Amino acid sequence: MSSQISALQKHRAAYQPKLPKALRTGTIAVQLGASTAPPTDQDEIRKAFPNTYGQPEVKLVEGKGSLKSGALKVGVVLSGGQAPGGHNVIAGLYDALIAANPASVLYGFLKGPGGVIKGKYVELTAGIIDEYRNTGGFSMIMSGRDKIEKPEELAACKKNFETLGLDGLVIIGGDDSNTNAAVLAEYIKASGCTTSVVGVPKTIDGDMKNEQIEASFGFDTAARTYSELIGNIARDAQSAVKYWHFIRLMGRAASHVTLECALQVQPNICLISEEIQQKGISLDQIVDSIVDTIVKRAEAGKQYGILLVPEGLLEFIGDIKVMIEELSNILAADEASLKSLGDQTDRSKFITGKLSGHSASVYNSLPAAIQAVLLERDSHGNVPLSQVETERLLMDLVAAKIKVLQSQGKAEKVKFAPLSHFFGYEGRCAAPSNFDADYCYSLGYAAAQLVRAGLTGYTSNVENMTKSSDAWIAGGTPVTMMLNMEQRKGKPTPVIKKALVDLDGAPFKFFAANRAKWALEDAYVFPGAIQYFGPSEVCDAPTKTLALEKGA
Amino acid sequence: MSSQISALQKHRAAYQPKLPKALRTGTIAVQLGASTAPPTDQDEIRKAFPNTYGQPEVKLVEGKGSLKSGALKVGVVLSGGQAPGGHNVIAGLYDALIAANPASVLYGFLKGPGGVIKGKYVELTAGIIDEYRNTGGFSMIMSGRDKIEKPEELAACKKNFETLGLDGLVIIGGDDSNTNAAVLAEYIKASGCTTSVVGVPKTIDGDMKNEQIEASFGFDTAARTYSELIGNIARDAQSAVKYWHFIRLMGRAASHVTLECALQVQPNICLISEEIQQKGISLDQIVDSIVDTIVKRAEAGKQYGILLVPEGLLEFIGDIKVMIEELSNILAADEASLKSLGDQTDRSKFITGKLSGHSASVYNSLPAAIQAVLLERDSHGNVPLSQVETERLLMDLVAAKIKVLQSQGKAEKVKFAPLSHFFGYEGRCAAPSNFDADYCYSLGYAAAQLVRAGLTGYTSNVENMTKSSDAWIAGGTPVTMMLNMEQRKGKPTPVIKKALVDLDGAPFKFFAANRAKWALEDAYVFPGAIQYFGPSEVCDAPTKTLALEKGA
Repeated sequence: MSSQISALQKHRAAYQPKLPKALRTGTIAVQLGASTAPPTDQDEIRKAFPNTYGQPEVKLVEGKGSLKSGALKVGVVLSGGQAPGGHNVIAGLYDALIAANPASVLYGFLKGPGGVIKGKYVELTAGIIDEYRNTGGFSMIMSGRDKIEKPEELAACKKNFETLGLDGLVIIGGDDSNTNAAVLAEYIKASGCTTSVVGVPKTIDGDMKNEQIEASFGFDTAARTYSELIGNIARDAQSAVKYWHFIRLMGRAASHVTLECALQVQPNICLISEEIQQKGISLDQIVDSIVDTIVKRAEAGKQYGILLVPEGLLEFIGDIKVMIEELSNILAADEASLKSLGDQTDRSKFITGKLSGHSASVYNSLPAAIQAVLLERDSHGNVPLSQVETERLLMDLVAAKIKVLQSQGKAEKVKFAPLSHFFGYEGRCAAPSNFDADYCYSLGYAAAQLVRAGLTGYTSNVENMTKSSDAWIAGGTPVTMMLNMEQRKGKPTPVIKKALVDLDGAPFKFFAANRAKWALEDAYVFPGAIQYFGPSEVCDAPTKTLALEKGA
Repeated sequence: MSSQISALQKHRAAYQPKLPKALRTGTIAVQLGASTAPPTDQDEIRKAFPNTYGQPEVKLVEGKGSLKSGALKVGVVLSGGQAPGGHNVIAGLYDALIAANPASVLYGFLKGPGGVIKGKYVELTAGIIDEYRNTGGFSMIMSGRDKIEKPEELAACKKNFETLGLDGLVIIGGDDSNTNAAVLAEYIKASGCTTSVVGVPKTIDGDMKNEQIEASFGFDTAARTYSELIGNIARDAQSAVKYWHFIRLMGRAASHVTLECALQVQPNICLISEEIQQKGISLDQIVDSIVDTIVKRAEAGKQYGILLVPEGLLEFIGDIKVMIEELSNILAADEASLKSLGDQTDRSKFITGKLSGHSASVYNSLPAAIQAVLLERDSHGNVPLSQVETERLLMDLVAAKIKVLQSQGKAEKVKFAPLSHFFGYEGRCAAPSNFDADYCYSLGYAAAQLVRAGLTGYTSNVENMTKSSDAWIAGGTPVTMMLNMEQRKGKPTPVIKKALVDLDGAPFKFFAANRAKWALEDAYVFPGAIQYFGPSEVCDAPTKTLALEKGA
């Protein structure tokens, strides 16, 4: 970390995150619930996790319990994409271990799960922890995307645990990383090693949640940061009165971030991938519907607007998905013939000759630059859909459609001047909001108690988060109860079910009930920058998504 | 404005901006200094402004004076690009007029100077003003880029002033708009009309400043918003340890925004257009120097970094500028022949055959997509340099250079994975920082006093801004003293001299003294989001640029 810090860093370093009431006491006990089961695929999951299946839910309560009070050795690792609050999980974990026994030791494995496999770590001392309290990013021990999956990787971890004498390993990650935590926990327990493996639910995408886990950490801060910017741009649109802003937001598999930003800012148009998939809406229909709003606003004298689109959109459009699958097969079979054609016009002709009729027309409807990108293959041999800048694609298609309409004497009022934006990296490492700072610290503090209780295969959680932290309840959810079987690399595999936007859920329903009004009026709300020091309703409120889900 | 507002909007609406001490009293007087002259071109400017040349500097002080106390009618207009705090200028103006006489009336001309010419306005009542206090954007009365220049436009303004019985018009704008204010003031005074014309120094670019005007408003908030994002990205870079982020920032004519962000975040590389122009650095040399830093960092195990570039960079590179001029001439003369060539390869060949040897090699050194863009012409008939995404151009050139080096067995450690960002619209309409909220309110309050004093051809100002507002001194600067003669549309024209980054100034010197260290170390500072409610050193500090300029 840099030796020079900003005024905000200095003051945030002194912030003491709030803990659930039970964790503030010196006497924390574990309250075990009934044994659990996943909602589906029980037999397969029990078979895959014979030693950790069916464990009870855990609540952490005040009371004399049997938590270990000796000095513990615990490791911690950050897995996958950055999310605001990761450092606070580690600080909470550290403080809890030291509070239980000052001789406890915390090791930070470096650069993600690969560090656990390779046994690369640093000891996290009070000095290091203090530098990173309430800061953004994962720079304390960095992150990585390696997975602990193969037998030799699992064995290497076990060896490192034994060498270090680890009582526990805390894996801070998303759904895949928590699935891996379950696999590792099962392996370790089966092998007779006593290291507890505990997960912490992290991802700005907000798609690791269920009845026990109300939110993944980082979602609040990231969505607030994007909403700040979207609100600023909406105000600009309304002031300059001449630009349509097409804004792409992070979120490949789920659209929670985009939906939350829409709830915060009330843009004119917001595309939700899950709805498009479920209703089988085509790219053409999406473009038509955008054009329709642009025309209506232009007729009302408004040549500007705000559109939000999740980066994963294309993968949820049925006809695009079919075309991509066909393309993949053609590329796999005929790459050599394709490569022999130097010119994009020839290549497009070659491809559309091989695609089915509908896919060929979908392919031909795309701008030339995108057609070219789709004939590349990424390092995994896939069509590089993620390289398509979806917001620019939509801008091009909408502009082309408006041109056609105007050539027919329609949409005459429209002067379409679009600008594109993509927000992702801007929010993943923001300094955590008070909500995320408190939540993360509590998750880390709770994870320490799960290790002290000798529990393994759990994810730490905090419930009741729309209330003040006095009413928060921390605990642990057995990972196996969150699993279901999905096809991965062609075979059924137990994984944590990703929480997609639920079209019957309150957040989406609120959005759906209001979007027609937001489309035509300027109903923009301006959330502004994340505040850390002001009135509680400005600084401490949970996301709109969580508030609506909890009926708050 | 939307009827629904965010929690932050609600609390910011209640913020009472600070005023310089003298403006807090009910008895404000005007203190006139010595008569003034521009630093150069006195004769030409005197000739162009016979009625408003040489006016004295004005300070607003406490004391019994001769300011008008009758009910006044004043108009206000927003000109050019949005800047945070515009609404507060209007609120300060309104409050000052009402404080002087509750029967005063404020008209807001709509959609920029065009609204003054056309006489399109709304009366700004207390209800409207209250809705917009301390908010971002120019949405209250919107903005526009029309200029009041032609005789018939000037005459139309005069007619509207007389019809409305205006005592004053306050023009909130940048250097060009304040130049136009001077022209309008001169015209109005010469014609015997008594309407005062007063300017207010606005632009996020920070390039309207001089000895009297310490900063243009909006610069602080915009630079803070960009710095928040750049800091977040720097933290991400340091956490993911695999990406170089190339970040382009608004600022076509001057690099103050980029320099301020560099001072706030301490990135690895920051390009300052003015330095590149002054030292005659070529595009090739820029690329080499970037590659050099990337190689050195890679050798230290750091495959990541942050680069800042002002959007106007290319126009400051000598060999690019020459090539663009040659291109413009060729396009003007041979557009038909060029258009007859369908293929970009043929067009490039045609062009390089006509360019001088050096320009041809510069043209050929550019990526194909940029070569194609440069053969288009914008709506003004110019080569559309502004459409070139400079950060992506640099990314491409750097990647190509690294490839060449690696083919020669050099730069072997480098794994160059770049990501691009552009920040502009994200900051222009942010809710103003406390600094800008206070400064803008004071500028508007001061503008009202200048109108009350019957002064015309002035820009309102506030001095001593690195001190607390108790020590701030408001006043007015005669616009003519800021003018110099420059070539515009082929003829010498009096315009306000743009303040470019001064290579001998303290801000640049601080940057230059530290950049070698910042290049190799991770000296990142994380400013975080703008704070409105916290400790004063977090919420109220002026920009680093101003602090360094004032030796604070």
